[in-house]
Amino acid sequence: MKVNGKHYRTIWMQDSTIYMIDQNLLPFKFEIKECKDYKETCQAIKDMTIRGAGAIGATGAYAMAQAFIENSSPDFLKQAKQEIESTRPTAKNLFTGINFVYDFINNYKMDSLVLNPVVINKANEFANNDIASSKQIGEYGNFLIKKQEKPFRIMTRCNAGWLAFVDYGTALSPIYQARDSGKPLHVLVTETSPRLQGARLTAWELQNENIPYKIIPDGSAAFFMSKGDVDLIITGADRIAANGDTANKIGTLELAICANEFKIPFYIAAPTTTFDLKCYSGKQIPIELRSEDEVLKKTGLTNSGIIETILVCTPGSSALNPSFDVTPAKYIKGIITEKGIVKPNNEEIKRLFVKQIITNTSVGNS
Amino acid sequence: MKVNGKHYRTIWMQDSTIYMIDQNLLPFKFEIKECKDYKETCQAIKDMTIRGAGAIGATGAYAMAQAFIENSSPDFLKQAKQEIESTRPTAKNLFTGINFVYDFINNYKMDSLVLNPVVINKANEFANNDIASSKQIGEYGNFLIKKQEKPFRIMTRCNAGWLAFVDYGTALSPIYQARDSGKPLHVLVTETSPRLQGARLTAWELQNENIPYKIIPDGSAAFFMSKGDVDLIITGADRIAANGDTANKIGTLELAICANEFKIPFYIAAPTTTFDLKCYSGKQIPIELRSEDEVLKKTGLTNSGIIETILVCTPGSSALNPSFDVTPAKYIKGIITEKGIVKPNNEEIKRLFVKQIITNTSVGNS
Repeated sequence: MKVNGKHYRTIWMQDSTIYMIDQNLLPFKFEIKECKDYKETCQAIKDMTIRGAGAIGATGAYAMAQAFIENSSPDFLKQAKQEIESTRPTAKNLFTGINFVYDFINNYKMDSLVLNPVVINKANEFANNDIASSKQIGEYGNFLIKKQEKPFRIMTRCNAGWLAFVDYGTALSPIYQARDSGKPLHVLVTETSPRLQGARLTAWELQNENIPYKIIPDGSAAFFMSKGDVDLIITGADRIAANGDTANKIGTLELAICANEFKIPFYIAAPTTTFDLKCYSGKQIPIELRSEDEVLKKTGLTNSGIIETILVCTPGSSALNPSFDVTPAKYIKGIITEKGIVKPNNEEIKRLFVKQIITNTSVGNS
Repeated sequence: MKVNGKHYRTIWMQDSTIYMIDQNLLPFKFEIKECKDYKETCQAIKDMTIRGAGAIGATGAYAMAQAFIENSSPDFLKQAKQEIESTRPTAKNLFTGINFVYDFINNYKMDSLVLNPVVINKANEFANNDIASSKQIGEYGNFLIKKQEKPFRIMTRCNAGWLAFVDYGTALSPIYQARDSGKPLHVLVTETSPRLQGARLTAWELQNENIPYKIIPDGSAAFFMSKGDVDLIITGADRIAANGDTANKIGTLELAICANEFKIPFYIAAPTTTFDLKCYSGKQIPIELRSEDEVLKKTGLTNSGIIETILVCTPGSSALNPSFDVTPAKYIKGIITEKGIVKPNNEEIKRLFVKQIITNTSVGNS
């Protein structure tokens, strides 16, 4: 990823300090937050300085390494593990990241001392895996993007870019790969109310990557589809059931239904760690209701450059704020994973977990 | 309509002064704006102190009466007419209101003097017609709302309530009638980005009318439909073509497509003046692109009670802001007019303009 022309990761570790892009300040300020110990890192996860499935997973791995550097006794590590886990108890990837390092420490040959650099290396391995799978998703997804004179027009939702992972991202990764392979592009970024991650994070990423984009109101997506202004839609995923039903940011379902109506290919991009094969269908995926304040209030920059939060709705109103919705597999043309593109059905999804690499041409953008 | 328990119209005239609810201050302040002459009234239309098809029509009629009171010479009136017309040149209803009074003055018996109260009366007649047709729409629409123990759940978009007309409104009028006939209700108000008329005007109306509602993000509409939480959807219309294709606030198309997918009845409510029979289909309806600032910025109340406008998107971004979309007739179950409920097709729509009253039971909510 590039910020002001310089290469960054969303999160990284140097000696015992974790550095991360402070996402609470974006898009108005770009600052790197330093967390000197695992407790500071826990706080950063809690207050959403860092967010996004892949990025949170890496933070868990790094935080576990930080705890080990502080005190390598089993009791201390066990307690630290629980503390890190409790920061975002529903984030599946956080647990994966934590366990990746914790299990390594526990399983290390008992006759030798684990050294700090070895543990940091293990956490880096987790972050590097995240980058590798994101990059691979981009390469597969790039097959769906046509090289043509007029810009190929892609619509996306929320932020499944590098800010949500360690680098590249998922839904935006094919866009970065396509740009690198010289394909002219234009991205329609749905603002993604209530938290406006499209308008604030995806727009900011694309601006830094110098990729042409426009922000559009969520309700206008069907209008642009009806006009023939959309060639492809790609979103990320929070959880994918065994049958391909996909939970993602609220509003994804509407996009998918309209895409289906207007015969526009609708794809999900996500690493295979996003699949939850214990969920037979989307009906087993619980939907989190978040604070109504996210709907009633907006945060932004005043004319005098101050970040201010204002009430934008009728005072005294209440709101409903479902964080995710579930898109039935029938509206999804394919799921772009690091192991290839699969159709959203039990058979193809199962194959992802038995073979290392499946063919990436099973679902084309035709 | 009721504000703080007191009955109001959106606009009214007393002697030579026009009074209107200042919609620019809503929902944060309730103030009545006084316009002492037609030039002040023109300014109020221009700066959107008053907005909404029916309300603007009545403002045109009243402004014409104001001009007459000021100076009844034909030259002055002709010039004033042009001036009022230029305030919102695309608002069809504005012209209807202006001509209603202007033609009356011109056609008045030449041997007698037209008196000020007679002209004011004529303008009142226009406003009263607006109220009568809104009320009638409510009565027909009320047939679609079931009386049941659990609240009947209606979803709407933007504001087609009394603030957009002189009283009652269109999409919200059936809700008020249903409430009056003792039917328990719950309204899901889509916030209606970018200008948030749902969250700011419809929510404010419903609060004043003491009707239970929740504000929901635009993108969550399909989620609530998929959960079975919506019994009926009613929106207003800006223009309806001869075949029933309907232009309305951006996002209406998405609602209609999703409603169709989930088999939820989707209705349009509008007076017959909204039909434009010269438009054969929705393809003839032009779509206005509005300022991108409406997408990039939001206005609201700070903690210290000041109304402030803030930038909520990535600085330097640009946005697309189509004001309306066109919903094809095939997604619309019926159009609720003051002459009855019709199916959205050429035959039924044509009948609206030849017979006074058609049966209101031609389209049921089955």
